[in-house]
Amino acid sequence: MNLDALYSELTLKIPQGGTKLALVVLDGLGDIATKEQNYLTPLEAATTPNLDKIARDSAQGRMIAAAPGITPGSGPGHLGLFGYDPLEFQVGRGVIEALGLGMELKHGDVCARANFATLDAKGIITDRRAGRIPTETCEKLCAMLAAKIKKIGDTEIIIKAGKEHRFVVVFRGKGLEGPLTDADPNREGFAIPTVKPRDENNAGQKKLAGVIADFYKAALPIVAKEKPANGFLMRGIAHKPHIPLFEDRYKLKPACLAVYPMYKGLAQLVGMKKIEGPATITEQFERYLKEYDNFDFFFIHYKYTDKYGEDGNFTAKTKAIEDFDAALPILLRKKPDVLAITGDHSTPCAMKGHSWHPQPVLLTSAVSGSDKLERFTETGANTGSLGVFKAKYLIRLMQANARMFDKFGA
Amino acid sequence: MNLDALYSELTLKIPQGGTKLALVVLDGLGDIATKEQNYLTPLEAATTPNLDKIARDSAQGRMIAAAPGITPGSGPGHLGLFGYDPLEFQVGRGVIEALGLGMELKHGDVCARANFATLDAKGIITDRRAGRIPTETCEKLCAMLAAKIKKIGDTEIIIKAGKEHRFVVVFRGKGLEGPLTDADPNREGFAIPTVKPRDENNAGQKKLAGVIADFYKAALPIVAKEKPANGFLMRGIAHKPHIPLFEDRYKLKPACLAVYPMYKGLAQLVGMKKIEGPATITEQFERYLKEYDNFDFFFIHYKYTDKYGEDGNFTAKTKAIEDFDAALPILLRKKPDVLAITGDHSTPCAMKGHSWHPQPVLLTSAVSGSDKLERFTETGANTGSLGVFKAKYLIRLMQANARMFDKFGA
Repeated sequence: MNLDALYSELTLKIPQGGTKLALVVLDGLGDIATKEQNYLTPLEAATTPNLDKIARDSAQGRMIAAAPGITPGSGPGHLGLFGYDPLEFQVGRGVIEALGLGMELKHGDVCARANFATLDAKGIITDRRAGRIPTETCEKLCAMLAAKIKKIGDTEIIIKAGKEHRFVVVFRGKGLEGPLTDADPNREGFAIPTVKPRDENNAGQKKLAGVIADFYKAALPIVAKEKPANGFLMRGIAHKPHIPLFEDRYKLKPACLAVYPMYKGLAQLVGMKKIEGPATITEQFERYLKEYDNFDFFFIHYKYTDKYGEDGNFTAKTKAIEDFDAALPILLRKKPDVLAITGDHSTPCAMKGHSWHPQPVLLTSAVSGSDKLERFTETGANTGSLGVFKAKYLIRLMQANARMFDKFGA
Repeated sequence: MNLDALYSELTLKIPQGGTKLALVVLDGLGDIATKEQNYLTPLEAATTPNLDKIARDSAQGRMIAAAPGITPGSGPGHLGLFGYDPLEFQVGRGVIEALGLGMELKHGDVCARANFATLDAKGIITDRRAGRIPTETCEKLCAMLAAKIKKIGDTEIIIKAGKEHRFVVVFRGKGLEGPLTDADPNREGFAIPTVKPRDENNAGQKKLAGVIADFYKAALPIVAKEKPANGFLMRGIAHKPHIPLFEDRYKLKPACLAVYPMYKGLAQLVGMKKIEGPATITEQFERYLKEYDNFDFFFIHYKYTDKYGEDGNFTAKTKAIEDFDAALPILLRKKPDVLAITGDHSTPCAMKGHSWHPQPVLLTSAVSGSDKLERFTETGANTGSLGVFKAKYLIRLMQANARMFDKFGA
């Protein structure tokens, strides 16, 4: 029997206004201990009196975001946390980029991640990033394109500038489908390739390939005289994926308390209600208190652990954890019945980027049991009762702790 | 390559009368540490000098019975321990109930778990459990039914009373197959639903549905004047599953030393030889000594850890572990070459029922290695070399420790 089907069959509804579950994600929380930092991770170096208090009554472990050795982006990282196998439910880079820019996507929308680039007289790419033009230039060029190209046939074209040379194109129309091959050779010295259907027999992909070919015909002349951004590339061309709704899948009414557009977007992809307003973790926790009665499940996202990990700033990442810890008592005023605190992946300072190292996870409830750990740390979590497991199971453990599963078999 | 096929291909026969393997199951052994019990589990609170002695030379870990967060019944719990994926090999509740009553099932038998119930004048169920009639009443009613209904067409009908309102009906005949939908709306206020094939195209299920409809026609009038048990419901209607025999699968001649019928029945489902007689763990271990030369593999089942866990009686569960420990030296007089001690699932006292928490496992052999743990406990097992793994692999680890696997590849 299929495991998801079994979970679904055993799922009991929780009483309305009853059990509350909270998934608190410190983005990129996990780290590695190195000699340079006296063999401490930021989580270990940080002073965290409030996390320490709940650690004693928690079960701990470490989670593999997608697969051993795989470094996930934010998309697969969060889909895993939401209980969707990131290998089964893939989200195109165009969609992720669009979500990151705060664009509201509709069912059937196809998104492409685009770069301005420099072409020579023969149309050969000489710089894939157009010398990393300033964001203002990118915005100006996108406005030019958007003003002149509103539709290709019956397909609406939506263009939005990102940072530096990056932008996003959304194709909104009937019968479009992804994914297509890239309009990007991924290196200099080649012309812009024509996009092709990944599946020759897919009518939606064929139509989309035609639309994109026409879009290039219309758009390239508009930027032809711009320097150095006289061309552009597109990749990750795919439609908004069909993902079973969180509420249907888990019988939990979910809310998203995130600050950055990307995470709101990812939460929306699975049908979470996006709560707008809060701009800091303090405000997010305060809003949680206000929304407590309105939802069963809260996804609360904290960005700064990842940001400073990416910067390689150990001190700042440690401080970000301490800031989080200082705000935590607000959440605990109405302690969720089931509380999980973890990351979507590791972002080791020593690596200045995401990594594959399993992220530590803390799970506490009336029936989580205690692993007798005094703190929540990578090294402690290694000895926890949850072991090392795939992130997609976290939500199932949360459901179990919420007593949402009937017994399997007699 | 399929993993079971690989195991099978690599399996070496063990020398006759050579290596002995013992799987000792303390039912519901696993527990959770809570503040109320000073953060000790029963296994941690118990004084266990004999377990301690073997702990030092053991590998330890924790096992997931079926899947993360899933709480198994005894059926899936034991099938997993016997090395059969509980999601692949499912045993209907009717079969489990029949085994629990000590009924001997034949190949092709279909079993239904039945309840006496109260119906109103229009046939609407007003009490699904007929006021939990005394066991004696149930026995009387079952005897009435059994006396009057011996066959439906060519299908033999076997009825056996259980406790209070519960009984089992076995349908024994040619060409019958399950599973069917329940003759039980699972709540009051409805009539008894007609059973239907789960698969419309399955001839065996269709035949069985007809037999059960006729059985209802014959049986309901017999109890119509009984109060409050003037009707009955049936669910979990399925045939004895086809499970590859233990001896064929593992090349080990297995014996079952259990006291309770349910566990004998589960062992019989996979073809273990049921050894009758012993009524206590002391007697079970003594019988093991006598049967030592006759089998390769011994499944020894101890019930009381689960029983007191279900009662929420921490002291009694702790004492049950101590009683087990006191008897252990009998087993160790002829120490099995490979000895695994574990549970089929956790039954935390704080939860008064089965749970999903991984059960601790201890594995000792000449080549198990030592995890340098002084005791066998949940918290220690968290740090063991076996990690957290699916229970279905335990038997493979036991086979490996018995040196029963050839090398895979060169």
